[in-house]
Amino acid sequence: MINQEFKAMLSNKNVIRNMAEFAAARGKEIGYENVFDFSLGNPSTVVPQEVTDYMIRLLQEKDSLALHGYSPTTGNVLYKEKIAESLNERFGMEYTGNHIFPTTGAAGALAHAVRAVTKPGDEILLFAPFFPEYTPYLTKAGLTMQVVPADTETFQINFDAFEEMLSEKTAAVLINTPNNPSGVVYSEETLTRLAKILYDCSDRYGHNIFLISDEPYREILYQGVQAPFVSRFYDHTLVCYSFAKSLSMPGERIGYVAVNPRCEDAEYIVPMCGQISRGIGHNCPPSFFQIAVAQFPSLTSDIRVYEKNMNLIYDTLMDLNMTCVKPDGTFYIFPKAPEEDSIAFCEKAKQYDLILVPGDSFGAPGFFRMAYCIDTEKVERAMPRFRQFIQEGYGTINPA
Amino acid sequence: MINQEFKAMLSNKNVIRNMAEFAAARGKEIGYENVFDFSLGNPSTVVPQEVTDYMIRLLQEKDSLALHGYSPTTGNVLYKEKIAESLNERFGMEYTGNHIFPTTGAAGALAHAVRAVTKPGDEILLFAPFFPEYTPYLTKAGLTMQVVPADTETFQINFDAFEEMLSEKTAAVLINTPNNPSGVVYSEETLTRLAKILYDCSDRYGHNIFLISDEPYREILYQGVQAPFVSRFYDHTLVCYSFAKSLSMPGERIGYVAVNPRCEDAEYIVPMCGQISRGIGHNCPPSFFQIAVAQFPSLTSDIRVYEKNMNLIYDTLMDLNMTCVKPDGTFYIFPKAPEEDSIAFCEKAKQYDLILVPGDSFGAPGFFRMAYCIDTEKVERAMPRFRQFIQEGYGTINPA
Repeated sequence: MINQEFKAMLSNKNVIRNMAEFAAARGKEIGYENVFDFSLGNPSTVVPQEVTDYMIRLLQEKDSLALHGYSPTTGNVLYKEKIAESLNERFGMEYTGNHIFPTTGAAGALAHAVRAVTKPGDEILLFAPFFPEYTPYLTKAGLTMQVVPADTETFQINFDAFEEMLSEKTAAVLINTPNNPSGVVYSEETLTRLAKILYDCSDRYGHNIFLISDEPYREILYQGVQAPFVSRFYDHTLVCYSFAKSLSMPGERIGYVAVNPRCEDAEYIVPMCGQISRGIGHNCPPSFFQIAVAQFPSLTSDIRVYEKNMNLIYDTLMDLNMTCVKPDGTFYIFPKAPEEDSIAFCEKAKQYDLILVPGDSFGAPGFFRMAYCIDTEKVERAMPRFRQFIQEGYGTINPA
Repeated sequence: MINQEFKAMLSNKNVIRNMAEFAAARGKEIGYENVFDFSLGNPSTVVPQEVTDYMIRLLQEKDSLALHGYSPTTGNVLYKEKIAESLNERFGMEYTGNHIFPTTGAAGALAHAVRAVTKPGDEILLFAPFFPEYTPYLTKAGLTMQVVPADTETFQINFDAFEEMLSEKTAAVLINTPNNPSGVVYSEETLTRLAKILYDCSDRYGHNIFLISDEPYREILYQGVQAPFVSRFYDHTLVCYSFAKSLSMPGERIGYVAVNPRCEDAEYIVPMCGQISRGIGHNCPPSFFQIAVAQFPSLTSDIRVYEKNMNLIYDTLMDLNMTCVKPDGTFYIFPKAPEEDSIAFCEKAKQYDLILVPGDSFGAPGFFRMAYCIDTEKVERAMPRFRQFIQEGYGTINPA
């Protein structure tokens, strides 16, 4: 008999993918260029030419067995060392290659990190708004999710709620900065306070609470913004990373877990990830991409387009007198809907061929996400339509 | 606290990898060319030049977003369709792209297939000798493994033992043909009898028993050998495949699950695999390799070297009067050790710089595996050493 639990999940699909599928279907009717699809976080910039050139050279020149053969159990040594070096230089850390576990993207990284530092039945705390896929990632590892309600004024951390929800059952805390969906970067002040609470609670409950920091947007920052490196604030931190967004290759599934050398049992965690892989069918990301990306651990695609798009949208929102925290980076923005029911709001938007994602599955009903990793030309064309939708549906919020 | 179960696994590592690591360490002492390393199933032939050329052309010509962007949830449509067509043409099946789920190698395929058709607590039957990694693959999906003892005369199926072990708790049966470690292909007769028993038991127990057929060596066949296509014999079959061995790219993690269109609930299984992915951090194999391999679903590397190597080893074994079933394909051979304790035998072999893997973790103590996916020149040099080891350790088995 097929597995009834997974069969039941079929009727409860990823809300973002559902919206993207609606956009694709509508595109077949009216031309996709006429659908203002803000659903998917699929980078719109290209892979840097020097990375493409290097990949071509690898295929032309490198020995086939060395290029396409099995990686060692815990990954390609050069890839691990180059990432450690890059993190050390940029963030003043002391990683070695032995602290880096290569993974198939950030999803693979999270699958390993959460299993390494929790056991089924444990609680993990995370903060709204959060990437909805965390729900299957965490619950299928046997964890109970405790969602700390959002601080909707700033999208930093709601510390009062957080402190109330921490308990001796808390094995780990998951954060995501720069944040999907809010675009906000956690400030030094936020991270300092978070670390202090985690140290205090670890003492109080007699076990270290691990911090899992999901950082796929770490390099997608707007002018003047610095993103503090989370692991510098708290020893027991595992970073989950993917080159999906920084090198615009989300389909290639290349990322890593970086274990803070000062973390409890740091020396075991990467080898344990190798064991975790055996149970979930992982066995290292593609050898070719490990070898290729090892040459470019700090490079990013040309990401200026995202800030340009963000400003176009943010200015329109402000002009319409809507409520929105301005993003510090990523390619997302998370405004407050002009009605309480953000699912209804996003349904109505479809009639204007505006594809928005309601905040409910991000743990923040009443808000909606726009992913603006699309051509600026399309954002420009979308703004009058968005303005029309708001004005027709909700009146002239801004009488000017 | 770190997960104690995975920590405990660190002292109980993959026996094949341990042998390979010993070989690498010994290679540093005396030169790897002097270590006769038969431990790892890492293909020794190169990726076909036309595949490499095509990958270069993709990088030179194809749009970066289309090449490196996210795959759809259940994989690249072209890859799925091309695989379906290839299987239909070669094996007279009726797959469509909707029956194919792209995975990160055969390990990824198995991780999805077993979760799709079982639930934690179910029993799965498999046959010795078997690939040792099946143990973590299956037990970490919550299954209880029931290992049917080997038919050591033929390495076909020990049907008497099999029928005794089937019960109403049996949710699935796992086979691997051509087989790692024996190199044997299950005959038409074996598969016909297996299917009949599975149909009968499905009737008797009131639920269909699924057959999971792990086929990464399907194309590695020796002269005159035909491998019957398992799914033709039994409707409720899920094929797990990887291009690792056929295209000599094991590090690239590109494979699939193929769901027999006549399988119970066939239409649900691929979408369910998409849901299973969300829980284990999978999210499709690399887009680049799906697009590349879609052009070559039936091609293989030049695999003649494996048969040449096999014959060299098999002839030596026969000359030494040792007992061995002759392989039909793969790049493995699984002879009987000349002493009962095959772990001791393989330890002694190390003194001759012969790296062999004991059969114990394959469920067949008393046997040992040689992976001969190495240069023929090295096999030739290894045979006198092997002969010396047997003769010095175990006397002249063959007085001629």
